[in-house]
Amino acid sequence: MRTLVLGGDGYLGWPTALHLSRAGHDVAVADNFARRQYDFELGVESLVPIQTLQARARVWSELTGRDIAIHVGDLTDPEFTIEMIRSFHPDTIVHFGEQRAAPYSMIDRSHAVYTQVNNVVGTLNVLFAIGEVDRDIHLVKLGTMGEYGTPDIDIEEGWLDVTHKGRSDRVLFPKRPGSFYHLSKVHDSHNIEFACRIWGLRATDLNQGVVYGLATPETALDPRLSTRFDYDSVFGTVLNRFIIQAVIGHPLTVYGSGGQTRGLIDIRDTAACVRLASEHPAEPGEFRVFNQMTEAKSVAELAKTVAETYAKDAQIEFLDNPRVEADTHYYNVTHTRLVELGLEPHLLADTLIESLFGIVEQHRDRIDERALRPTVNWRTTANPRTTVHP
Amino acid sequence: MRTLVLGGDGYLGWPTALHLSRAGHDVAVADNFARRQYDFELGVESLVPIQTLQARARVWSELTGRDIAIHVGDLTDPEFTIEMIRSFHPDTIVHFGEQRAAPYSMIDRSHAVYTQVNNVVGTLNVLFAIGEVDRDIHLVKLGTMGEYGTPDIDIEEGWLDVTHKGRSDRVLFPKRPGSFYHLSKVHDSHNIEFACRIWGLRATDLNQGVVYGLATPETALDPRLSTRFDYDSVFGTVLNRFIIQAVIGHPLTVYGSGGQTRGLIDIRDTAACVRLASEHPAEPGEFRVFNQMTEAKSVAELAKTVAETYAKDAQIEFLDNPRVEADTHYYNVTHTRLVELGLEPHLLADTLIESLFGIVEQHRDRIDERALRPTVNWRTTANPRTTVHP
Repeated sequence: MRTLVLGGDGYLGWPTALHLSRAGHDVAVADNFARRQYDFELGVESLVPIQTLQARARVWSELTGRDIAIHVGDLTDPEFTIEMIRSFHPDTIVHFGEQRAAPYSMIDRSHAVYTQVNNVVGTLNVLFAIGEVDRDIHLVKLGTMGEYGTPDIDIEEGWLDVTHKGRSDRVLFPKRPGSFYHLSKVHDSHNIEFACRIWGLRATDLNQGVVYGLATPETALDPRLSTRFDYDSVFGTVLNRFIIQAVIGHPLTVYGSGGQTRGLIDIRDTAACVRLASEHPAEPGEFRVFNQMTEAKSVAELAKTVAETYAKDAQIEFLDNPRVEADTHYYNVTHTRLVELGLEPHLLADTLIESLFGIVEQHRDRIDERALRPTVNWRTTANPRTTVHP
Repeated sequence: MRTLVLGGDGYLGWPTALHLSRAGHDVAVADNFARRQYDFELGVESLVPIQTLQARARVWSELTGRDIAIHVGDLTDPEFTIEMIRSFHPDTIVHFGEQRAAPYSMIDRSHAVYTQVNNVVGTLNVLFAIGEVDRDIHLVKLGTMGEYGTPDIDIEEGWLDVTHKGRSDRVLFPKRPGSFYHLSKVHDSHNIEFACRIWGLRATDLNQGVVYGLATPETALDPRLSTRFDYDSVFGTVLNRFIIQAVIGHPLTVYGSGGQTRGLIDIRDTAACVRLASEHPAEPGEFRVFNQMTEAKSVAELAKTVAETYAKDAQIEFLDNPRVEADTHYYNVTHTRLVELGLEPHLLADTLIESLFGIVEQHRDRIDERALRPTVNWRTTANPRTTVHP
């Protein structure tokens, strides 16, 4: 099976590419290194040092004998995108190649516009390339649980059976997301569903929860294979950030009361989910949605878990919530379809987060505390350009 | 009341600006003349000759003593957009300023990307400008009934009360539109709803049906005030096109069986709806949706109506449908909110279309028959660049 991983240099794209390569896929990756550029803009860097993509791929080849081809370019460049897909001709395209941080999209107008144009146009170019090159190519697209928002009804996997005034239909699950970033994924989902309908494309939309963790069996083979680990308030996901705060004795910064609930997933499960979706493709014309999360926790529960596991005396600091979101809300999510395909979830109650504390301690001298505090407020249209070294 | 009409040079923007001016609004219009440029690209022109925007505004001022200020620029240019809104400081922004033809968006990749970027970025820039300049400015945004697609349940006005697994919520009405153009409006609607939520903006989203007609009481004052009348297969709306075909003895070209049903509205009612929405603004933070149509007819019924009114011997030619859409479907739309605000609909059964036949006959020497046949097929990713003069 030939698999092309878009955004293959990123936090999840890289470990997923390795996982697929080890599972026997013939893997190519593409990246424009936008994620590394955001680090320069924000004045932060991955907690764990990372190699260039070319060096990583070389190490992987030396250790395993498996090659990963690298395509350097931008998905918003249509010639690059179609030529890559034409020449590699994958069975599956796994699409991680988007700007992925809600706070980044909320900095100001230009970051909102950049996020939506980058994500929507990149995905349109991929859809048109599939439509032209081979409509049988299966698109596995990373979405986010944040697309749904927090409706007062159960969240189903992408579609909803509705009865209204005595008539029934299966409709796309209504979405009410919480940032211009999350909105870009909602736009993508609508565009992809349409492409399946008119061109008979096969697509799987993975609405992923908040990912935590760092090491996978493949990245753990050699430190030079490590993926990035972001802890800053813009790109760091909540649990990863709490772990770092606990290690350096910083209060765990909870936004609002912490009653807001998030779907979660272990980084190893992300890779497994993508592999399962790839190896069990959607039917021609099918727009399939999986909720890619394994459990749900409130932010306050996550803080408590970290404190209990590592630092019983850890302070929890409740900050004014810079986001506009419900502080407490109903949250019940159906997420059975990936388990039906064979996913065996790693849950938070297992040992994983303990292993993370060791990694963080090893790199604690690289931590910049100033990067931990939120700098982007949802209520203003123009936040100061975020920098931790003013 | 100060009202800024974006896209004020267009088929509907211009007559609406005149209607608001006559109703006592202090009106300014903005346009980048993209619509006139599409004519050059497609090799077609308005059936009825139109003046420049500057000449039209001069004539209006001479006839009525009312001035309409003109802002020439592009909404995707953020400096233009914010400076215009800051200097004119409207109470209401009426937003017609988008690429509005489904077939145009389906020509190929570059037209799809252009349509989505142009429409989504323009609207984002307007939202950010309102957020910065004055959050009390009411946005009246033109959407389309085509955003909904054809669900097998009744279509409500933007929101839907859902009960699911014993719980209830009011959710955004799920949408499944039929072109990259219609999708751009769905993206806009999600972005606008979010801006209302986080910044407390006031917005009215007008999901408009297919508009027919040409003259309004204001444009009829002088031939130099006429609005454009498009009959080509890319920009011409279905009923307007049938009328022209009837006059020149061309078969009325129905796509598929003609069973597909459209919401309709008279051009005079468009202007009235926009005025009613402007004069009864949404509340702060409210995202309000009106279905701006007055009746629903199948395409076959429309052809029959035109034939019976004008040309009893008119042929109807059933073409393979170049679009991907349900040929027959349920279609029942709630559209009471504008009537509650005072709209008195002009229905098709009234005399309007007869008056159109005279106008068409007057300009029949300007008709290019080659422009009437569909040239854009939904099923291919790359249609030939549409031109009627190959």
